[in-house]
Amino acid sequence: MHEGLAVSERPLGAVHLGEDRARFRVWAPNADKVELVLQGKLERRIPLEPEASGYHQALVDGVAPGARYHYDLGGGKLRPDPASRLQPEGVHGPSEVVRSFSDHTPGWTGRPLDEYVIYELHVGTFTPEGTFDAAISRLSHLRELGITAVELMPVAAFPGERNWGYDGAYPFAVQASYGGPEGLRRFVDACHAEGIAVILDVVYNHLGPEGTYLADFGPYFASYYRTRWGDALNFDGPHSDEVRKFFIESALHFVTQMGIDALRLDAVNAIVDNSPLSFFEELGEAVHRRASELGRLVHLIAESDDNDPRLVTPSSQGGHGLDGLWNDDVHYALLALLTNERIGYLQDFGLVEQLAKTFRENFAFAGEYSKYRQRRRGRPAASVDPRRLVTFVQNHDQVGNRPRGERLSARVSFDKQKLAAAVVLLSPFLPLLFMGEEYGEIAPFPYFTSHGDPTLVENVRKGRAAEMAKLGYSEKPFDPQDEATFRRAKLDFKLRTTGDHGRLLAWYKELIRARRELFAFAAEGGRQAVAFEDERLLYVRRWNRDSEVFVIYHFGDHPVTVTLPVPSGTFRRSLASSEARFGGKGDVSAPEEITSTGLVRVTLGPSEAALYVRAR
Amino acid sequence: MHEGLAVSERPLGAVHLGEDRARFRVWAPNADKVELVLQGKLERRIPLEPEASGYHQALVDGVAPGARYHYDLGGGKLRPDPASRLQPEGVHGPSEVVRSFSDHTPGWTGRPLDEYVIYELHVGTFTPEGTFDAAISRLSHLRELGITAVELMPVAAFPGERNWGYDGAYPFAVQASYGGPEGLRRFVDACHAEGIAVILDVVYNHLGPEGTYLADFGPYFASYYRTRWGDALNFDGPHSDEVRKFFIESALHFVTQMGIDALRLDAVNAIVDNSPLSFFEELGEAVHRRASELGRLVHLIAESDDNDPRLVTPSSQGGHGLDGLWNDDVHYALLALLTNERIGYLQDFGLVEQLAKTFRENFAFAGEYSKYRQRRRGRPAASVDPRRLVTFVQNHDQVGNRPRGERLSARVSFDKQKLAAAVVLLSPFLPLLFMGEEYGEIAPFPYFTSHGDPTLVENVRKGRAAEMAKLGYSEKPFDPQDEATFRRAKLDFKLRTTGDHGRLLAWYKELIRARRELFAFAAEGGRQAVAFEDERLLYVRRWNRDSEVFVIYHFGDHPVTVTLPVPSGTFRRSLASSEARFGGKGDVSAPEEITSTGLVRVTLGPSEAALYVRAR
Repeated sequence: MHEGLAVSERPLGAVHLGEDRARFRVWAPNADKVELVLQGKLERRIPLEPEASGYHQALVDGVAPGARYHYDLGGGKLRPDPASRLQPEGVHGPSEVVRSFSDHTPGWTGRPLDEYVIYELHVGTFTPEGTFDAAISRLSHLRELGITAVELMPVAAFPGERNWGYDGAYPFAVQASYGGPEGLRRFVDACHAEGIAVILDVVYNHLGPEGTYLADFGPYFASYYRTRWGDALNFDGPHSDEVRKFFIESALHFVTQMGIDALRLDAVNAIVDNSPLSFFEELGEAVHRRASELGRLVHLIAESDDNDPRLVTPSSQGGHGLDGLWNDDVHYALLALLTNERIGYLQDFGLVEQLAKTFRENFAFAGEYSKYRQRRRGRPAASVDPRRLVTFVQNHDQVGNRPRGERLSARVSFDKQKLAAAVVLLSPFLPLLFMGEEYGEIAPFPYFTSHGDPTLVENVRKGRAAEMAKLGYSEKPFDPQDEATFRRAKLDFKLRTTGDHGRLLAWYKELIRARRELFAFAAEGGRQAVAFEDERLLYVRRWNRDSEVFVIYHFGDHPVTVTLPVPSGTFRRSLASSEARFGGKGDVSAPEEITSTGLVRVTLGPSEAALYVRAR
Repeated sequence: MHEGLAVSERPLGAVHLGEDRARFRVWAPNADKVELVLQGKLERRIPLEPEASGYHQALVDGVAPGARYHYDLGGGKLRPDPASRLQPEGVHGPSEVVRSFSDHTPGWTGRPLDEYVIYELHVGTFTPEGTFDAAISRLSHLRELGITAVELMPVAAFPGERNWGYDGAYPFAVQASYGGPEGLRRFVDACHAEGIAVILDVVYNHLGPEGTYLADFGPYFASYYRTRWGDALNFDGPHSDEVRKFFIESALHFVTQMGIDALRLDAVNAIVDNSPLSFFEELGEAVHRRASELGRLVHLIAESDDNDPRLVTPSSQGGHGLDGLWNDDVHYALLALLTNERIGYLQDFGLVEQLAKTFRENFAFAGEYSKYRQRRRGRPAASVDPRRLVTFVQNHDQVGNRPRGERLSARVSFDKQKLAAAVVLLSPFLPLLFMGEEYGEIAPFPYFTSHGDPTLVENVRKGRAAEMAKLGYSEKPFDPQDEATFRRAKLDFKLRTTGDHGRLLAWYKELIRARRELFAFAAEGGRQAVAFEDERLLYVRRWNRDSEVFVIYHFGDHPVTVTLPVPSGTFRRSLASSEARFGGKGDVSAPEEITSTGLVRVTLGPSEAALYVRAR
């Protein structure tokens, strides 16, 4: 067998071992010697002991949680710890030693992935306070909604106090302004107490443009590959074993010390790795082994819009062995039907059949030519279990990567929001909601930053404006650096009980309940999807040994009558988006009961969605 | 299913269709319009018709083979055809229309890969004349030696008249000074007449630094990946479908028009392709489909020292679906045992056990850490059929990538050359000989070029010297651009009948004969290899239902006695390197017969190799 990466006998970073003792360990092959510089009334300097492969370490007494430190790499280079757990004074300041945590929440071992109903949230804008502790106060809302997993946008320490999180500079650290590791762990334990798993969004494809000092320590970057965010990380060049170890350790740190149940691997397609044993395989192996040792369920979910089934194919079958994968095609196909926009990636969509195909074969693009990408996209993936694929009406990307960050609520009617929710929540895929979506939040979610470097600030401003213009948008983007842009993104949570917002919330709850209670939305079985292009209507049937359901989705703005291939028998309407309790005007077109002899004519109202369950 | 690349309904380049008619087709998405400029007493200009996806084409009358042309891309850009078949005036000159060829040699359908005994040759230095026609005169020597496949170093048109071939600028063209397409096809037909298949070395990982005008035509390159030879080719970015098509068309051209039986894909590890459907899969699919349509056997063999079994794993099992793969580890392990050199990659080797491991599990490095590469290398591959793996005592790379280009004959004794040959030729792998090796050629094979650009000449000189110094060599390299360096590499073919050269040749012939006749070296069966580290001795046993053999290889310089785990029974010595007919001094130590009861003590002379076959 190949030599596995031995990880974690001695974790990287500062590990508090007891009363006043800590081990410091850093990978710094560029440095001949590394000195630990501990702040205090009297500064202490402790030389680290060099080890094989460029590691340096020391066991140091007289160090308690709260101690702040740098590494002196020589040549005047005083640097924070690449594996810092906390940057209390920001990305340019010292690192802080934190206490050690328990490797599980008592009584909690995780949830199977197919139970996940995911709620993506950004800690800084989810609540007025923008902290983990404030977020805890809203968990009961999520539980009542039926959420089983919260997905945190990245919390790795970033410059300033406002950032989406993808500019993180310290892959082991938790943003201090959110509450640091203590805050995150309280949040995780509180989620678990509500029966909610926690997914953490982690970025292994680049590091933020400010506050990253990794290049001073060693060859963390591979200059021979470039990503849109700069040099790629070194996953296949000389010393890549140690770079892999660094990121795998970071993953294990969040799983064990922070109690995280799943990792969402950001933009895996921007990770370039031309080696026979992929970084993903090693990451998966290490995380799954650790989870199994701890008796917990931990999942790895890749974000990619490449539609590559190998990401979730077992390693023994030539795949990367991850557990879950993004499925953007449902969103693309859906948005093109709901809006008349054809900007950017939406130019490839617009047919009901594309959405139907996702229901049948998982991806709409499984090798077809994409005009937007100017090449073919994807690979056939019909054999992938749809319960490994994450889909959504919207997420932070599709909302935020618009000049004004408009949510779907600002782009389509109330009825169409309900229709969209039904597509995602009654699909065979894992659904993901973007915070506030469930009650039609109206605050935008524009791109925001709080960089410290004025040149960077200007470059981001210009880059953002150029990107939006290139996509074809004519509006000027909100200024990312302006604090008002960030404040604008905060949820107006009290909306959720008012008027149509409350009725939308009721619809989401019912959809999630139906999803949970009707076998067909969780268990394996047959699936059929038929597109009626002229009528802008989609018929989706799903069945297994015990049960049978179908859903009719109508994307048109006028009533239509179609002949559906409903199997013989009688079906009862279980839910319709046009019901008064969900804000309908009292005119439900979808019949209460459908009795078919193989084909049946049905009339649907504008933007109506209806779920039917076999009665007999 | 994914959309396959539709190739060859209308091939790229100038295709002669009959008496005086030709179709011209070029992929030039960067050009608004493309004009064909035909040379002649009167220059003719014919606008090409733009087609979808950036193609331009025209059916032109009054064009016979021999016609020379450029494409005018506008803006003063008069360029040769990227898919030129012949550059009669060099890489910067016009392209030439050539006749169309038959898609097979009558009576020849190829050979199964497991029959291949490969002879690598460089057309320019194999004969005094340096042409395909001159090479034909030596094919009877190869047939008598037992060679079943000739591997041509790259013949794609390169700058000047002297080049290893890896600076090729026109992937469809055949170097004019070698004899062009007519010469290559005569050579291929002559090989087939001798029962010899032809493998062509093709370079899809970069294009030569001089005479390449592809970037004027379209996005053939991917600037976001860099290889050691510059920007990588675009196999996964926008427009990559067409770039893939260009190279796949080139492969199909050589298979159909030139009659080539197999392609050796140069340095596939330098091809970066982050897409779900790999270029290799598509290339393999297209070539195998075409071969099957023609009723021929065509193989794709990847050169890579990454030890990645996925290259030869079927596409349906998550692999790239190629047929063969380089196995450098046998060479590395062998050379470290034969020489005391530990320079460059040899620093990772030196144990008999490493060679033993290749016999048992194919690769010595299957995930182990490599000091030379400063990372782990390879992936377990014991389940790969060894008859898919190409190995060698030496090839152009290991000979030529030394300052003075010394062959093994200049580095080790006559006895050790024989020992090395036995390791490779009696192995379960596909053996490859480097031209002249079979009779101990003494001419070196240094790196040579004949670039036209003085700056490039100087850069290559300096780069080469720097590379050799970095590897740890103290000698100054021969000047690549000096014609004497090239002339020095020409074989002294008459040596083959003289003294020890002739006796070495006899040994090679007998080894190849034994390989062919003794089932065990071709058919599947069990394999066992035991290393005796202190005695510098390797025992390799192979067996199947019908037969059983073992070989003893002794790498030491003094006689040794060891106890071998020979199975019960009697074995006859079939061949020993120390026999007088192979230049031994009349003192064969290896006994003529070995009768074992499970363990047996045997004495071997210095550098002795002996093959035993079960008698009863």
